[in-house]
Amino acid sequence: MMIIDKLYERVLKNGPVCIGLDPREELLPEYLMKKDWSMGEKIFEFNKMIIDATLDECACFKPQIACYEAFGLDGMLAYSKTVQYIKSKNGISIGDVKRGDISSTAEMYGKGHFEGDFEADFITLNPYMGCDSISPYNKYFESGQKGAFVLIKTSNIGSEDFQESMVDGKELYLKVGSKIKTWGESFVGRSGFSALGGVVGLTYPEEFKKIKDECKGLFYLIPGYGAQGGNGKDAADMIGEEMCGIVSSSRGVIGAHKGINEGESFAECARQAVLDMKGDILKWL
Amino acid sequence: MMIIDKLYERVLKNGPVCIGLDPREELLPEYLMKKDWSMGEKIFEFNKMIIDATLDECACFKPQIACYEAFGLDGMLAYSKTVQYIKSKNGISIGDVKRGDISSTAEMYGKGHFEGDFEADFITLNPYMGCDSISPYNKYFESGQKGAFVLIKTSNIGSEDFQESMVDGKELYLKVGSKIKTWGESFVGRSGFSALGGVVGLTYPEEFKKIKDECKGLFYLIPGYGAQGGNGKDAADMIGEEMCGIVSSSRGVIGAHKGINEGESFAECARQAVLDMKGDILKWL
Repeated sequence: MMIIDKLYERVLKNGPVCIGLDPREELLPEYLMKKDWSMGEKIFEFNKMIIDATLDECACFKPQIACYEAFGLDGMLAYSKTVQYIKSKNGISIGDVKRGDISSTAEMYGKGHFEGDFEADFITLNPYMGCDSISPYNKYFESGQKGAFVLIKTSNIGSEDFQESMVDGKELYLKVGSKIKTWGESFVGRSGFSALGGVVGLTYPEEFKKIKDECKGLFYLIPGYGAQGGNGKDAADMIGEEMCGIVSSSRGVIGAHKGINEGESFAECARQAVLDMKGDILKWL
Repeated sequence: MMIIDKLYERVLKNGPVCIGLDPREELLPEYLMKKDWSMGEKIFEFNKMIIDATLDECACFKPQIACYEAFGLDGMLAYSKTVQYIKSKNGISIGDVKRGDISSTAEMYGKGHFEGDFEADFITLNPYMGCDSISPYNKYFESGQKGAFVLIKTSNIGSEDFQESMVDGKELYLKVGSKIKTWGESFVGRSGFSALGGVVGLTYPEEFKKIKDECKGLFYLIPGYGAQGGNGKDAADMIGEEMCGIVSSSRGVIGAHKGINEGESFAECARQAVLDMKGDILKWL
């Protein structure tokens, strides 16, 4: 089965929640912070407990690699162990790496993030450098085993600087979305979705409507729920009854225990937060 | 002294060559490939010998992190040892990481690449996500200790897909360049250049002229010499007598020994290649 079809099946079965594994010191429970372990060891234990507590209620996990690179080699070991642990549990991982580079360099990123220590099922990519910064990953998409989400319209305020530039009467993000749709046409699974999807922030529902009209058949990674201001109704409107996307939340899930449960059962709060978020989205569908 | 001033001094003293440390299996000399070492150990030894042989004839070194991520944790150790070795020799490093992410995530990238195991003097950044994907690094620029080069017009053919989009009668890359110029105005050193510079491919000399007119005072990282098709005359035209940039070459320098010297003195070829490249640029100035 193609990985995009597996992800879509998971969405239909478990709901559209994507859990952002973006560990930061201030989010770790007190009992873990007190341990005589390296930060990387603490992070991996934190992730492992959250993965175990939420696996059957979420669509996938999205570790943000910046939060691991911040802790150097020790952090990268935690990243590697995290994506491998997700795989060992038959979970689906999205390496949120937002890489973007030219052909031969992109091949090296492909080797780095679709094979070996840092292997994930999907990665995120940045489109600024154009077609030959995306096409080097095609062999992985063709295999059916891997997929990617390319930035279209991001959730932050700075996304207005360039992404909303008007190009031939349309916003740049529509041009980007339309190219992604074209580039992904060879990698469509039986779900009808391509292994090459798009990233659109939940904070821009009006823009999402335009993108959905322009790029029919794309599957979306939608960040911005909760802490960044996106709500369940907007999320439901965006993914629709066809469930054409996953909605990502990090702090709202992995920080749900803060000030409530700082002990070894902290991950129960993450599970409850996922159930609440699912309910908050699905009640509108 | 601000790092941008140190880099500019190095350009005036040693010339404008930036050596791309993009190690690939096929570039390593045979005697190294035969060693019973991990790939990361081989890569670090390779880099170390090139750094030793070229330090006094180049402006700086630019390890492309994709070539290290490709080898997983072992590769990341080689990356860490490489940037640390450059520092120990009082060399200048540009971590070619092309990161781009929103505020709190960019802070983690800052921690990852301006501190700790992966600390470099400069990094490269992707502008697609806008102002709040660049501003989180300001504290490092303010300190004078760090700088960054943001992608404006890249050297690859795919750069035409989005970067050349016409926005209000001007190409998007000009809009990006102009924003970078504005964002960097608080970090100008005594050289007159800002710690926030731009990346423009040597393969687009006409576009470079427009950028230089639009964004006066930027310092440039210019990839694309040699293997990618850029020549010395174009490079000289671009940096000009004011020497407003560094010209990057990877394969032409670190692969110069291939088929000629596969033994322990292979790095002499890299040194000669740097001298040749310097001559090829400086003879036009």
